[in-house]
Order: sequence, then C-alpha cells, then structure tokens
Amino acid sequence: MSQPIAFSLETWSRTQLGAVETALSQWVTADAVPALGWGAPQGLVQAMRYAVLDGGKRLRPLLALAAFEAVAQPDTQNHPTAALRAACAVELIHAYSLVHDDMPCMDNDVLRRGKPTVHVQFGEAGALLAGDALQALAFELLTPDDGSVPLAVQGRLCALLARAAGSTGMAGGQAIDLASVGQTLDEQALRHMHQLKTGALLQASVMLGAACAHASEQAQSALAAYGQALGLAFQVVDDVLDVTADSATLGKTAGKDADHDKPTYVSLMGLERSQRYAQELSAQAHAALQASGLRNTAALAGLADMVVHRSH
Amino acid sequence: MSQPIAFSLETWSRTQLGAVETALSQWVTADAVPALGWGAPQGLVQAMRYAVLDGGKRLRPLLALAAFEAVAQPDTQNHPTAALRAACAVELIHAYSLVHDDMPCMDNDVLRRGKPTVHVQFGEAGALLAGDALQALAFELLTPDDGSVPLAVQGRLCALLARAAGSTGMAGGQAIDLASVGQTLDEQALRHMHQLKTGALLQASVMLGAACAHASEQAQSALAAYGQALGLAFQVVDDVLDVTADSATLGKTAGKDADHDKPTYVSLMGLERSQRYAQELSAQAHAALQASGLRNTAALAGLADMVVHRSH
Repeated sequence: MSQPIAFSLETWSRTQLGAVETALSQWVTADAVPALGWGAPQGLVQAMRYAVLDGGKRLRPLLALAAFEAVAQPDTQNHPTAALRAACAVELIHAYSLVHDDMPCMDNDVLRRGKPTVHVQFGEAGALLAGDALQALAFELLTPDDGSVPLAVQGRLCALLARAAGSTGMAGGQAIDLASVGQTLDEQALRHMHQLKTGALLQASVMLGAACAHASEQAQSALAAYGQALGLAFQVVDDVLDVTADSATLGKTAGKDADHDKPTYVSLMGLERSQRYAQELSAQAHAALQASGLRNTAALAGLADMVVHRSH
Repeated sequence: MSQPIAFSLETWSRTQLGAVETALSQWVTADAVPALGWGAPQGLVQAMRYAVLDGGKRLRPLLALAAFEAVAQPDTQNHPTAALRAACAVELIHAYSLVHDDMPCMDNDVLRRGKPTVHVQFGEAGALLAGDALQALAFELLTPDDGSVPLAVQGRLCALLARAAGSTGMAGGQAIDLASVGQTLDEQALRHMHQLKTGALLQASVMLGAACAHASEQAQSALAAYGQALGLAFQVVDDVLDVTADSATLGKTAGKDADHDKPTYVSLMGLERSQRYAQELSAQAHAALQASGLRNTAALAGLADMVVHRSH
C-alpha cells in the first residue's frame, strides 16, 4: 500500500503563485491588440502594473485555484484556463480597490506593501484611471475571444465577479465603512460591513474557481459556507494584527483603524475574544470542507489555517 | 399598394427612452437581493441614482436598441431583454465615466447637465465609490440569474463592454487625454485618442445591440463601420459645440476645452473644416448602413443625423 504524500501548502502555493505571477505580468500589458491595431497607453499600463505586480499575498487567486482543484475531476469537464483567468481577475479587482482606497479622498495612505501608493507615484488622476481600467480588465480576462473559455462559463464567471465587486459586495462595504467612521456599530452591523467589504470577494474567489469545473449543489453550498467563514476570519485577524503587529511586518501603517476611529472586532469584543472568534471561524471553514463531499481539499484547508495564523 | 409609414426618430426614441428610464430606475436600486438577504447601502445608491437618472441624452442606449432592432428578425432567435439590459449597462459605464471625470483630480467640474456634479453633492469619496459601483453594476445587468439572457449571450456582452470600457477603450482614451494637455497632437493622434475615449463605447453600444440577435458577418462588419464613423462624428461635433454653443444650451461649461488647453478638432483643423468633417463622417455612417444588407435601419440612420445636427 502506498503512503499518501503529505500535502505542503508552501510547495503547492509556490507552484500556483508562479503561474499567477506569470499570467498577471502577461495580461496586464500595453501590447497591441491585433483586432484593434493598438494597445493600452504606456503610462496607464505602468500604473496598472505597479498596482498589481508588487508581491501581494495573492490569497484570492490561491483560493480560486484551490477551489478549482477541489472540484475538478478527471472524468468531468474542467476549464483550467478559465480557473487561472478567474484567479487573476479577482486579484485585479482586489488591486483596483486598494488603489482607490488609498487615495486622499478615502484613506489617504501613502504606503502600501512598503512602497509609495499608486497616487503618490502616478498622481491622483493616474491612480483613479488605473483603478478604473483594472476593474474593466478583470472582466476582459474572464472573456477571452480565443475559444479557451466557453461563452457560458464566461457569463457565469462575470456574474459572480460583478456581484462580489459591486454595490451589494465590495463597493457597498466600502460605502458602509466610510459612513461608519466615528459611529458605534454592534457586532451584527460590523459583520455585515465586512461581509460586503472583504468577505464577498474572498467568497467569490472560491466560487469562481468552483465554477470552472463541475461542482455539485452540495459542494457549491459547502464551498459558499467555507468562503464565508474564511472571509470573516480574514477580517477578524486583520483587526487583530492592526493592534498586535508593527508597520514593518504589516507592510502598511499599523494602528491605523484605531487612529481613524474605525469600529473593529478588537474595539468591539476585545483582543482575546477576537482571537478566539477567528479560531472558531477557521473551525467552521474546516467543517464546511468536511461536509462538501469533496476529497481534494487539502489546499483549501491549508489556506483556512494560513488566514488565521498569518503574521501580516 | 400600402404606403410605408414615414419613420419618426422622435416617436421611436420616446418609446425606447421610456423603457430605458423605467429599467434604469428599477435596476439602480437599494432593494434587497433575495439570495443575499441584503441590498446596496442607501447612501451609495442615492449617489448612483443621482449620477444616472438625470435625463442625459441616452445616445448609447438608443444606439444599442436601434442596432438590435435592425438585426432582429422574426424568424431568428432574438433576446429583447438582453438588448434592454445592454442598453442600460452601456449607459452605466458612460455615467460612471462622467462621475470620475468630473472629480477634482480630473476635470474638476462642478456642473453637469445643469446640476452640481456628484462629488459636489456627495463628496469625493462618495463619487469615487459610486463610479466604481456603477461600473460593476453594468456587468451585473448583463448577467442576470433569472434565465432571461442565455449564459453564452451574457459572456459575449461582457466581452464587448469590458473591452470598450477598459485600457484599450474608454479608460485608455482618458489616460491619453490626460497626458496630452498642453501637447501638440496631430490629426491622427487626436483621432486615436477619441477613438478610445468616446468612440469605443459608442461603437460598442451598436455591437452590443447587434449581439442580442443574430447578425451576419456582413451586418456585423457594416455596423462596426457605422459605429466607428458615428463615434468620431460625435466627438467632432462635441468640439464644435464647445466653441459655438453657450453653457446653458450645453448644460455644461462651454469653452472648457480651450480653457484647459486641450487639443480639439477645432483647434487643429478650424471650425469650418471640422463642420465639414462631421458631415463626411455622417455620410460614411449612412453608407455603412447601406452596405449592411439590413433593412430595418431607419433608427440607426436617424441617430447618425441627430449626432451631427444636435445643438447640445
């Protein structure tokens, strides 16, 4: 009897990230589009690449690829190209949201991952347009015209991504966040805000990956539960790190939520209860994987652990 | 022999605009999404509605619906719901671009269609988020989950819209525009900028409508030529109106391009040659319709005339 080889998230991630970085670098480009006879303007693409190709954690692409891997079976129709495109598309949405979020009229942040933010480097107008173009590019990635992704899959992927990014998802959460500075939010309102602001896109990452292969109803609903628990855990840990880590480790300004008088899990339930809550959510994510009926869930399980145990 | 009833663009437009306004008002909403249990935040939706439901000309929706009408045949598969959604989606992209364009870091405009601009009314962060959410909503409109639009059509529509909005389309054109203030552009460079900045979305409006019914290759390429000529004509006339009309008629600040030292057709080729060029482009649009093999092109023809003869 052969022993199963122990799964290493690190090894798995390294392979996946290699593919993601290569694809992002290739797809965020000023190369001429043959059908048009022109490409995107150099200056705009420079700002877009600066925003995207900067060594983020790539949690969202990893979630998409892990979900695809969990669902894809040798005997069903799978779309690995679609999965890589979905992984990159969701990262572009994330990247654009950071660019706009850092602008002076929003969080007015000058440092992101240890580098000057996009508006500091390229001006405010440059950052605004780069963010806008990155959002559009996300949908371009999902809809290649080379036949590599069936049109019906393209439609399904765009549906998932648009809802996660829009007014009932990420943009809506940012609007609530903006309106809640200096307000007292109860736990339910805080959870709702984060469910939209960061949770929707994290959950969508999982669902996008799953949509690139044939997932049963049972698997889909389990993955939705996994994504929801993980998304919430991510935010709770973010709030914890904002008070426990230093700026150098975070790669962004620590203690900034408290400074901005923003409601956080730590301000609401204290540090210890927040840390316990993150553990509970991680357990919920694992339980959902158990209930999914899927066998190849090692990467998803590893990512759930990573989210809770990360230091930045 | 029965006489053909003379086509009235005004009557046709009134009917179409009624449907578009109703649909926009219904789709840009804070209503709860049943599958989620929540809707978009009220404040955000208020800003989005302010940006969209303000009585613009709705040229893009009209182009989409006119192209659909030209292509749709009783004996082929048509998707009228998709056409209305596409018409509204392209208007949302247009509306978001105006919101961001008016912001202080871009054109810094305080008046739009006779009303305070979105950032004046809702703050800069509110305008930024409303624009972002409108772009996502455009793709949400194209991808309903109620079975009313086939998934493959959804994919095709998203592909067209994303490319027209993105870095090789509208956002790219704005980036070139931004970089060209105070620069001397030749006619080719000016045309390229406008082809991206306004032309791509106008042309896409036509192609989106056509994609909601079965258009032959011949019809598609003729409609692409029509859309390109019309898009260019629109911009030439815009530049002409910027010097010949007053702010009250335009509903925006007249003479602003010259003030901002922006290259325009008028600054490049003079007023008279610009007016003649607009006429030529209109003739090209009509010729493309003749070559399309389509019969029901009265609305498209009327819109080409309207673009050249408009007073605002």
